[in-house]
Amino acid sequence: MIYCAGKTVAQVRTIVAAMLEGEGDILATRATPEMAEAVAELSPDARYNPLGRTLVIRRRARPPTETFIAIVTAGTSDQPVAEEAAETALLFGNRVERINDVGVAGLHRLLARLDLIREARAVIVIAGMEGALASVVAGLVARPVIAVPTSVGYGASFNGLSALLGMLTSCAGGVGVVNIDNGFGAACLASLINQP
Amino acid sequence: MIYCAGKTVAQVRTIVAAMLEGEGDILATRATPEMAEAVAELSPDARYNPLGRTLVIRRRARPPTETFIAIVTAGTSDQPVAEEAAETALLFGNRVERINDVGVAGLHRLLARLDLIREARAVIVIAGMEGALASVVAGLVARPVIAVPTSVGYGASFNGLSALLGMLTSCAGGVGVVNIDNGFGAACLASLINQP
Amino acid sequence: MIYCAGKTVAQVRTIVAAMLEGEGDILATRATPEMAEAVAELSPDARYNPLGRTLVIRRRARPPTETFIAIVTAGTSDQPVAEEAAETALLFGNRVERINDVGVAGLHRLLARLDLIREARAVIVIAGMEGALASVVAGLVARPVIAVPTSVGYGASFNGLSALLGMLTSCAGGVGVVNIDNGFGAACLASLINQP
Amino acid sequence: MIYCAGKTVAQVRTIVAAMLEGEGDILATRATPEMAEAVAELSPDARYNPLGRTLVIRRRARPPTETFIAIVTAGTSDQPVAEEAAETALLFGNRVERINDVGVAGLHRLLARLDLIREARAVIVIAGMEGALASVVAGLVARPVIAVPTSVGYGASFNGLSALLGMLTSCAGGVGVVNIDNGFGAACLASLINQP
Amino acid sequence: MIYCAGKTVAQVRTIVAAMLEGEGDILATRATPEMAEAVAELSPDARYNPLGRTLVIRRRARPPTETFIAIVTAGTSDQPVAEEAAETALLFGNRVERINDVGVAGLHRLLARLDLIREARAVIVIAGMEGALASVVAGLVARPVIAVPTSVGYGASFNGLSALLGMLTSCAGGVGVVNIDNGFGAACLASLINQP
Amino acid sequence: MIYCAGKTVAQVRTIVAAMLEGEGDILATRATPEMAEAVAELSPDARYNPLGRTLVIRRRARPPTETFIAIVTAGTSDQPVAEEAAETALLFGNRVERINDVGVAGLHRLLARLDLIREARAVIVIAGMEGALASVVAGLVARPVIAVPTSVGYGASFNGLSALLGMLTSCAGGVGVVNIDNGFGAACLASLINQP
Amino acid sequence: MIYCAGKTVAQVRTIVAAMLEGEGDILATRATPEMAEAVAELSPDARYNPLGRTLVIRRRARPPTETFIAIVTAGTSDQPVAEEAAETALLFGNRVERINDVGVAGLHRLLARLDLIREARAVIVIAGMEGALASVVAGLVARPVIAVPTSVGYGASFNGLSALLGMLTSCAGGVGVVNIDNGFGAACLASLINQP
Amino acid sequence: MIYCAGKTVAQVRTIVAAMLEGEGDILATRATPEMAEAVAELSPDARYNPLGRTLVIRRRARPPTETFIAIVTAGTSDQPVAEEAAETALLFGNRVERINDVGVAGLHRLLARLDLIREARAVIVIAGMEGALASVVAGLVARPVIAVPTSVGYGASFNGLSALLGMLTSCAGGVGVVNIDNGFGAACLASLINQP
Repeated sequence: MIYCAGKTVAQVRTIVAAMLEGEGDILATRATPEMAEAVAELSPDARYNPLGRTLVIRRRARPPTETFIAIVTAGTSDQPVAEEAAETALLFGNRVERINDVGVAGLHRLLARLDLIREARAVIVIAGMEGALASVVAGLVARPVIAVPTSVGYGASFNGLSALLGMLTSCAGGVGVVNIDNGFGAACLASLINQP
Repeated sequence: MIYCAGKTVAQVRTIVAAMLEGEGDILATRATPEMAEAVAELSPDARYNPLGRTLVIRRRARPPTETFIAIVTAGTSDQPVAEEAAETALLFGNRVERINDVGVAGLHRLLARLDLIREARAVIVIAGMEGALASVVAGLVARPVIAVPTSVGYGASFNGLSALLGMLTSCAGGVGVVNIDNGFGAACLASLINQP
Repeated sequence: MIYCAGKTVAQVRTIVAAMLEGEGDILATRATPEMAEAVAELSPDARYNPLGRTLVIRRRARPPTETFIAIVTAGTSDQPVAEEAAETALLFGNRVERINDVGVAGLHRLLARLDLIREARAVIVIAGMEGALASVVAGLVARPVIAVPTSVGYGASFNGLSALLGMLTSCAGGVGVVNIDNGFGAACLASLINQP
Repeated sequence: MIYCAGKTVAQVRTIVAAMLEGEGDILATRATPEMAEAVAELSPDARYNPLGRTLVIRRRARPPTETFIAIVTAGTSDQPVAEEAAETALLFGNRVERINDVGVAGLHRLLARLDLIREARAVIVIAGMEGALASVVAGLVARPVIAVPTSVGYGASFNGLSALLGMLTSCAGGVGVVNIDNGFGAACLASLINQP
Repeated sequence: MIYCAGKTVAQVRTIVAAMLEGEGDILATRATPEMAEAVAELSPDARYNPLGRTLVIRRRARPPTETFIAIVTAGTSDQPVAEEAAETALLFGNRVERINDVGVAGLHRLLARLDLIREARAVIVIAGMEGALASVVAGLVARPVIAVPTSVGYGASFNGLSALLGMLTSCAGGVGVVNIDNGFGAACLASLINQP
Repeated sequence: MIYCAGKTVAQVRTIVAAMLEGEGDILATRATPEMAEAVAELSPDARYNPLGRTLVIRRRARPPTETFIAIVTAGTSDQPVAEEAAETALLFGNRVERINDVGVAGLHRLLARLDLIREARAVIVIAGMEGALASVVAGLVARPVIAVPTSVGYGASFNGLSALLGMLTSCAGGVGVVNIDNGFGAACLASLINQP
Repeated sequence: MIYCAGKTVAQVRTIVAAMLEGEGDILATRATPEMAEAVAELSPDARYNPLGRTLVIRRRARPPTETFIAIVTAGTSDQPVAEEAAETALLFGNRVERINDVGVAGLHRLLARLDLIREARAVIVIAGMEGALASVVAGLVARPVIAVPTSVGYGASFNGLSALLGMLTSCAGGVGVVNIDNGFGAACLASLINQP
Repeated sequence: MIYCAGKTVAQVRTIVAAMLEGEGDILATRATPEMAEAVAELSPDARYNPLGRTLVIRRRARPPTETFIAIVTAGTSDQPVAEEAAETALLFGNRVERINDVGVAGLHRLLARLDLIREARAVIVIAGMEGALASVVAGLVARPVIAVPTSVGYGASFNGLSALLGMLTSCAGGVGVVNIDNGFGAACLASLINQP
């Protein structure tokens, strides 16, 4: 796995080239389009997700799990983090179901999708601003909830700090929180839950 | 109106004695039982609410308004702030309806009380921890919402800071926030809305 | 309503196109000139306010309210937030009166406009730096005050945090605070007060 | 479940009495010895853990799970939080294994217990100060790690904030974080993982 | 000068005894009544101000200055800090005029005292909560203003931080700020201004 | 006086044009070169200081004061703030003496200039990083010290916050602090001290 | 070594008893007088320093080093931390020299002791408030400086945070910082420097 | 030594030209490529390290010390800070050994290099995110450890604050911390330790 932020295109290219000599799957997060181009020259199998800024080279085909990870977002601005989480979870062999745009300001949209969420083995909830969606989902669904605060918002959102604090102090039990915008980390944890 | 915190019993007594020479209603917030005893000696009409720590001397009887202020709390620990708000609103001549213990971890309890809340002229929402109740109520009710974060919680609640930030960054429109535990201020604002 | 920050021009265009199939008014906040151009191609009725960064498509003509919302600013740097608030309030059908440049460093300017402010049904006070204007107005005017801290200032202003804290701890009762630079949210709340 | 902090002995007693009319297990966290005494009068089955400040009334006997939750602490000062987590996990029917005093300043003690930790279905890591134990365990063990920062420490520990931030920014994947000192919440999440 | 906080009664007594062997005036701030008693045994001239928590032993009589320092407070809770400032300024030989309870929520009280404040050589403004009084005074008075934030308030006052930030970001020029509750430091600076 | 940050070139030009119809001196701070060019077209007397980012149009010639303001800087990076302070103080009619590059890491440089500083009527101390220079100067010089923290530094300097806190908590009495980088405000206060 | 804060008297007694079965020296920091009494019953060699709150049982006599550690304090309130550092350094076999009360507000006192400090192998500088002493010493002395911020001060000292930030951003090179009030940690580091 | 951030190319060039008239070595940190070019025109001996952003002009050749400074990094993103530290230490005449990419998520890599680290006279540990490497190294190696937090990371890393707090609250003794990204300062301190 490569975390590209703070690395140059050349560094990423070098690391990927070295990893291609091994046999494992390759995942680069926070990858720029320039990095994607550089890696495409190394491997025809590289697939770039520009919204999620992920770069995937899958080398070991295997069927996804039967149980699944639900990835739930509050709004469209949370989509990039959801993409990062989904790409990671898929590469790790998990079945993924996405439930988008169900923020608490329009509660009926969430209630309409509850049945699907309740069937998940683990639920990733992605939300910015006040991050209330994590509490509401955890109150309604008896599944492990992994909450990802996003840097969506302005002013007192403090780049995701408000959502982070809100998720940590959730009045609902059973919520584990990862770093702001950390879709990758949430998927790691969800995958460890989904595949004992 | 007297804010008693940081004042001595003697100071509060002196201020009340001076106010009794006028004709207005008297409200003391954050009053200790000792202050209540000292004031009881000054006026037989003094009424102390130990949970809300309010001390009221009502001198101008008047019928309450027809429209009402809804005071909504997330949990029992928010009750002292709700009492301060209710005592203030009542003294100012407002009809008050209370909706208690409807925190988002048990959403069905809130949904069961929605009809009443929707009839209010103004809604005061009181919650600690992540303060998500303000967003959820504002998403469901097209009424002015005044959010009061409380210092309920521990750790990353930071004495109400998390609830404060959550309410300020609410994804639902139409939410005005007052200081942490400021039931008095919320009632002032709600009263100005309820009595044009 | 569309909050454009963090969305692409294409995303905004798509959302507006979908909304145009309905019948409601459309308001986009934090819209860039590029977004305005893209939307202008979709509807000849789109009106862009470059200072307030709002994009409005009005489709249901109705006379404004008789009662009005006063929008009060401390200085010219607070103007963009005032524009966002005014555009929102107008679209929601409210009469709006603006009182500009009455910051507390020149108190006489504020005192000269008090009569108008006192007639308002709700008052939006917009100020940066220390945000003292909210306290001073609330001390002088017995109307619901909605305070909007702005990110105007430098150093210890901390992008609006100082104004936010100052407004939350106002020594005057009856002040509800919204997020930093949140003219839209203030207008939502003021409209709910102005139009019961 | 009852969170006792901020409640009076009488309130806790009343809530427990009401719950005893139902049939479920009862768990009170952050309970004082006085609360324990008051509850003991209500039920002979009440068991108080003074270190963990938990009060348990078990009413539905059932065999623990075969898979287990590992509860790992950095030092003796983290023990109260570990007790709260263990009591909660046990009441929920989980097998629990405890690995104490394996902080990173004495790495060999942790390495000596790795085999046991690796067999767990979920791992709760409890640490104060810089909270590095969570990263080290997650780097060594391919299991879901739930990190609990504790308020152990002084000065720049800021009552657990440093440990909290350290755990959130862990360089190892697969770590979910709960609130400072929140042994209860960690056990809720671990139990949902251990019992699909 | 002795800053007593964090010192024992014995330490203060020892330091005062040593200073009494010299000839200078002695001022102890943040002194407890116990310290006052211990010092009274050393010198019959010791004078204790319980509200300001100052202990003064004046040994060099001299007439006060003709020009004066104005000490302006927002409310009664700011009085202890004002006493500390006044005792310090007086001991340093300054004439002092006090203007109390002129917080911005009741602007007319301030306006009624403006003439006196405008005659001062230096103005000390003492206020808690949002600290707006400093800006308003500095906008009205062309004199050096020394602002002292106080720890008066609760919640988002953060023990004086909000007042501190508000004073630092004052929209009015000519305001110098000292530490929270630092009446002593304000008087030092005012005295250096008043006595060139 | 015009604070240019957050204003457009056109806005600054308009404001200056309006002020030129009066007779007073004009000072614009935080002015960009583009603003300087625009203003130069309006008045041949406009003088731009690119380091201090000040724009001055002097219209009332008067001899400077005999007493002077000392402007003391810790390092060359503090020079822009010193220029802003100097231009402001000069425009207000004060004599100014500059003492540069006397930070505490090279104490001998400061000691060599003490005689001059001690003759000042007021001392402005400008320093970033830990801001220790204010304490050292105030300990050595019995003059009013106005401390200006600068945003010089990185990491834990937090854009001037560390210097600000250090100056506020100075162990030396008689230090008044202004906002980070606020050379203008420091000069306003110093001028009020220097010209009773 | 035992860090006693957050431990009970019984726990400390048990740990000491276990350690007494070994042969090493024993040091307990943050020990209360009650702990000292309990340990005195276990060993007649236990020595308690009430100011430094240290409890030492020395069992391996050895001559101190020739080179020494200088422990420098700004004021008497910093003494407890200095005692903790000194007891620790002495137990580890180091020669220690103390230089007290040389804060920067009285620079001559520091200059008078410079010769001794310059001979040290390592220098521990202990200061609260703005912590400027570390910068000044490091600027004057070409020795490794270990800075210990103390929680001495009030208001914007934020329990040592200001001193901590000031020391971290010191304009003088060669300063390493430890946690607030951490005399023990500073002595550990100094001892590792003094005894290669 | 020149700290280039916040200086112009012309300023750096002028300072270097002045220093070249003396005889000492010259080190510029945070130098841009443009500065490097400007200085190259002044001296053919100037050597620029683009990764570490250091510019060195060595003028006094001397053999390095026999004892050495170990520079240990957690990941490749920490490399720029390590380069700054290494260039500084080398210029000061120290032997330097580098141990790269031994972050705690892959503990075996660190354990494999322990023998070398243990031979060092001083150890510089450079890490971002949660900064746990400092605690782990200090627990394993009885040498003075100088910890450098880096601004590597995102979200709750808060530009190095989390690593800074983690290192300050390290559970292992003997760790001195410098400012975020301050490779230069760490090398200054290490050099003072390595060359008594």
